[in-house]
Amino acid sequence: MSDSTLAPYLRSQEYSATLLINQASKLREQNNLPIYHFGFGQSPFAVPQAIVNSLAAHAHEKQYMAVEGDLKLRESICHLHKTLENKQWHKEDIIVGSGSKILLFCIMAAFNELTVVAPAPSWVSYKPQAKLTGHAYDQIVTCSDEGWKLTAKALEQYCSERKERHPLMLIFNSPNNPTGHTYNKQELTLLATVLRKYNVIVIADEIYSLLNFNGKNDSLENYFPEGCIVTSGLSKWCGAGGWRLGFAHIPKALGSKLKASIIGVASETYSCAPSPIQYAAQFAYQNKESARIFIQRQIEILNIIGKYCAERLSESGVKVCNPQGAFYLFPDFSKFKLALSRIGIVNSQQLTTNILNETGVALLPGSSFGMPESSLTARLAFVDFDGKQLEIDSKITEQSELEFDRIKEGIQGLCGWLESLSN
Amino acid sequence: MSDSTLAPYLRSQEYSATLLINQASKLREQNNLPIYHFGFGQSPFAVPQAIVNSLAAHAHEKQYMAVEGDLKLRESICHLHKTLENKQWHKEDIIVGSGSKILLFCIMAAFNELTVVAPAPSWVSYKPQAKLTGHAYDQIVTCSDEGWKLTAKALEQYCSERKERHPLMLIFNSPNNPTGHTYNKQELTLLATVLRKYNVIVIADEIYSLLNFNGKNDSLENYFPEGCIVTSGLSKWCGAGGWRLGFAHIPKALGSKLKASIIGVASETYSCAPSPIQYAAQFAYQNKESARIFIQRQIEILNIIGKYCAERLSESGVKVCNPQGAFYLFPDFSKFKLALSRIGIVNSQQLTTNILNETGVALLPGSSFGMPESSLTARLAFVDFDGKQLEIDSKITEQSELEFDRIKEGIQGLCGWLESLSN
Repeated sequence: MSDSTLAPYLRSQEYSATLLINQASKLREQNNLPIYHFGFGQSPFAVPQAIVNSLAAHAHEKQYMAVEGDLKLRESICHLHKTLENKQWHKEDIIVGSGSKILLFCIMAAFNELTVVAPAPSWVSYKPQAKLTGHAYDQIVTCSDEGWKLTAKALEQYCSERKERHPLMLIFNSPNNPTGHTYNKQELTLLATVLRKYNVIVIADEIYSLLNFNGKNDSLENYFPEGCIVTSGLSKWCGAGGWRLGFAHIPKALGSKLKASIIGVASETYSCAPSPIQYAAQFAYQNKESARIFIQRQIEILNIIGKYCAERLSESGVKVCNPQGAFYLFPDFSKFKLALSRIGIVNSQQLTTNILNETGVALLPGSSFGMPESSLTARLAFVDFDGKQLEIDSKITEQSELEFDRIKEGIQGLCGWLESLSN
Repeated sequence: MSDSTLAPYLRSQEYSATLLINQASKLREQNNLPIYHFGFGQSPFAVPQAIVNSLAAHAHEKQYMAVEGDLKLRESICHLHKTLENKQWHKEDIIVGSGSKILLFCIMAAFNELTVVAPAPSWVSYKPQAKLTGHAYDQIVTCSDEGWKLTAKALEQYCSERKERHPLMLIFNSPNNPTGHTYNKQELTLLATVLRKYNVIVIADEIYSLLNFNGKNDSLENYFPEGCIVTSGLSKWCGAGGWRLGFAHIPKALGSKLKASIIGVASETYSCAPSPIQYAAQFAYQNKESARIFIQRQIEILNIIGKYCAERLSESGVKVCNPQGAFYLFPDFSKFKLALSRIGIVNSQQLTTNILNETGVALLPGSSFGMPESSLTARLAFVDFDGKQLEIDSKITEQSELEFDRIKEGIQGLCGWLESLSN
C-alpha cells in the first residue's frame, strides 16, 4: 500500500494555519530573529505549587477509574463552581474527561443525527469535530461592529430557515476564543428565548468562565438551563492545559439516555482521565479559597495586559474591542485594506504571514476561525509574558507594577508596521 | 427535550455485560458476600517506585505537548522495544496517545471507507470503535480446538469471499485478550502470506507483547512489516493502566498521508497525552534494564498462577489452554452443556451470572467478546492477588513461594460448583 493507493480512503486533512505559523516561527528562531508568541493560546501562569504537590503525592495511583470520573472529583467540581459562579450542579450530572476537547467530541458523537452550528469566528476545533462525527456544520457569521457576538436576530433567522427535523446543536463559547468578548444579561435573555422556541441543544463552552474580567461570568445556562450542556476544565483557570482534565455538565432535563450515550462514546475512546491527574484535580477544585485568590490575580494581570494591547492597536487604527475575558483579541485590519492590497495582502493568511516576516509577531489568521478568506482579521493571544510574577504577594493594579516587555515590544512592532503602511 | 424526543437521534448503547457484572459484584460486597474479582482485567502489579518518583518530579509540567508526543519519549519507546523485542522502529513513526485504546480509535477514524475484521473472541472495544467510526465490522469465528486462533485458512476464505474494493483492516491481538494465546512462527508466516496477497492493513494490538511468558514475543510485524501498524503502551507491562499512555507505530510503507490523517484525528480528540505522564513514561522506557527485570518477575508470577488456574479447571472437565501470555483464560464449559441446560443455563450471560451468584466468582461472558449468545464460554482474568510480592528480592519459581489464596479459593469454588452440576 502506498500514499496514492490509500489516499482516496483517508479523511482529508484541512490545511493547518497553526502548523504553518509554528513552522515559520521555528525558522525565525533558528535564524536568531526575534519572535513574539501571540499565536498559541496557552495560559502563561504556572500550576500553583500546592496542586503540583498533590499530583506528586498521587503519582502512585494506577487503577483505572470510572469512565465518568471519580465521584469525589465530580463533587468538588460542583462545589467550586457553586462558590465562584453559583452553579446549581449535582455530581451525578458531571462527566470528567481527558480535557474538555474530547468531551465536546464525545457529546457530538453521542448523536447519530445532528446539525452543529456556531458563530464565526469560533474556536478552530468545533468544525472538524462535527465533521469527524459525521454531522453537518453551519456558521452564523458575526461582524466586528457588534463585537463579533451572536445576536438573537441572526440566530432567529438561521433557525427559522432551517428545514431539517433532527436536533440542532449550538456551540456557544463565552468568554470567547478568539474574540475575548462576553455576553450581557439582555443578550443572553434574548438568545434564550430563541433557543427555547426552536428546541436547540447548546454546548456552552465555558472553559474561560473563571477568567471573565468582571469576576463573575454570566452564563447562558442561567437563562436556558434545560438545554445547556456546560463544558469546562482545569486548563485555563489553573494553568494546566498540559494536564488534560476537563468536564461536562449534562442537565437532567435532556434525559438520562443522552448521558448514557456520551459515557458510551467516552468508554470506547479515552476510557477515563488519568488517575493521578484526577486526584490532583480533586485537590485543586476542593480548595476553593486558594482557587479564588489565584483566579483573582490572573484576572488583574490579564485585564491590564489585554487593555494595553487593545488600546495601542486602536490608536493605530485597528478595530478591536477591550477584552472582557480569556486572553485573546481579534483585531480587524480592514481599515488598512487599500494599503495592504497595494503590497499584495488580500486575505488573513497573507496578512499574518507578512506580519510574522516583517515584525516577528506570530498571530493566527481569521480564516482559521471560520472567517471568510478575504477577511483581514487575526487572533492575538496576549500570553507572551512571565506568569511567575503572579506569585508576588501583592495585589497588582497598575500597569507600572507589571513586567510585560515582550508584549509591549511585539505590539509596538506591529503598530510601527501599520504606520509604515500609511506612509 | 426529553429522553423520548432525543432517543431516535442518539447512538444506541449496546448492552454492557461488564457493567452488569460490576453491579452484581457491588451488591454482593454490600451484603458481605465473598467476591473473587476475575472479571476486570487490570494489572495487579504496582508501578515501580522509580517511575512513580519520576511522575512526582515532573508534576509541574503544564505545557501542551506535540499531538504525536514528546520526541524523547518516542525515541525511548523505540529503544526499549529494540532491546526487548528487536523492533526496528524509528521515532518519527511513533504516535503517542492517552492510552492505546484511543489510538486504535484514531487509526480507524483516519479512514473514510474501511472494513474492520477481527477474530471472535476478541477484546470488547474493537467492534464499538469500528461502529463509532462508521465502518463495517466483520468477525471470523475461531474454535477452542484450534486454541481460539485465527488460521490462515479461515482468513483466506474470508478475504476471497469479500466483494468490497475499499481497504480491509484486520485487528490482530497477541498475546491475546481474552484467550491468553500467542502465535508461533509457522502460524504467523502463513497468515502473512494471506495478508500480503489481499493487501490487508493490520493493527497488531501488542499491548501484552512484553508479557509473553516465553520472554520473547514473536510479532506478526516480523512477517508482514509493510502492512502492520503496532499499538502498545505502559498499561500492562508497567502496571500503569490508570496512567493512560499508549503509542502506535505506523510503518513508512503505508505512506505519510495515513500518519498525517491519524494525527489530524488525534488533534481533534485528545490533543496530546498529559505532559507529566509523558515525562514519567520517558523515564520508564529509558531505563531498559530495570524494565527487563520488572517484566521478567511479572512473567514468572503470571505463568505460575495462570497455569494453576488452567490445570485445576482442566481437571474439572473445563476445556481451557495453558495461558501463553497476558493474564487471561478463556474457559469453555461446553462439556457441561446438558447439566447446565437442566438448571436453565443456555448462554454465556446466564452462565456468568449463575457462577457469580453461586460461587462469588466474577467472570465476563463470552458473548461480550463477540462469541455467539449460545456459547458457553467466559473470560477469566487471574489478577485477584497481591502484586506487591513481586518486590521481594528473589526469583520466584515455585508455586509454594507465592501467595495467591484468593485465586485458589475462587478457582476451587468454581470447580466445586462444576462438580455439583454432575451430581
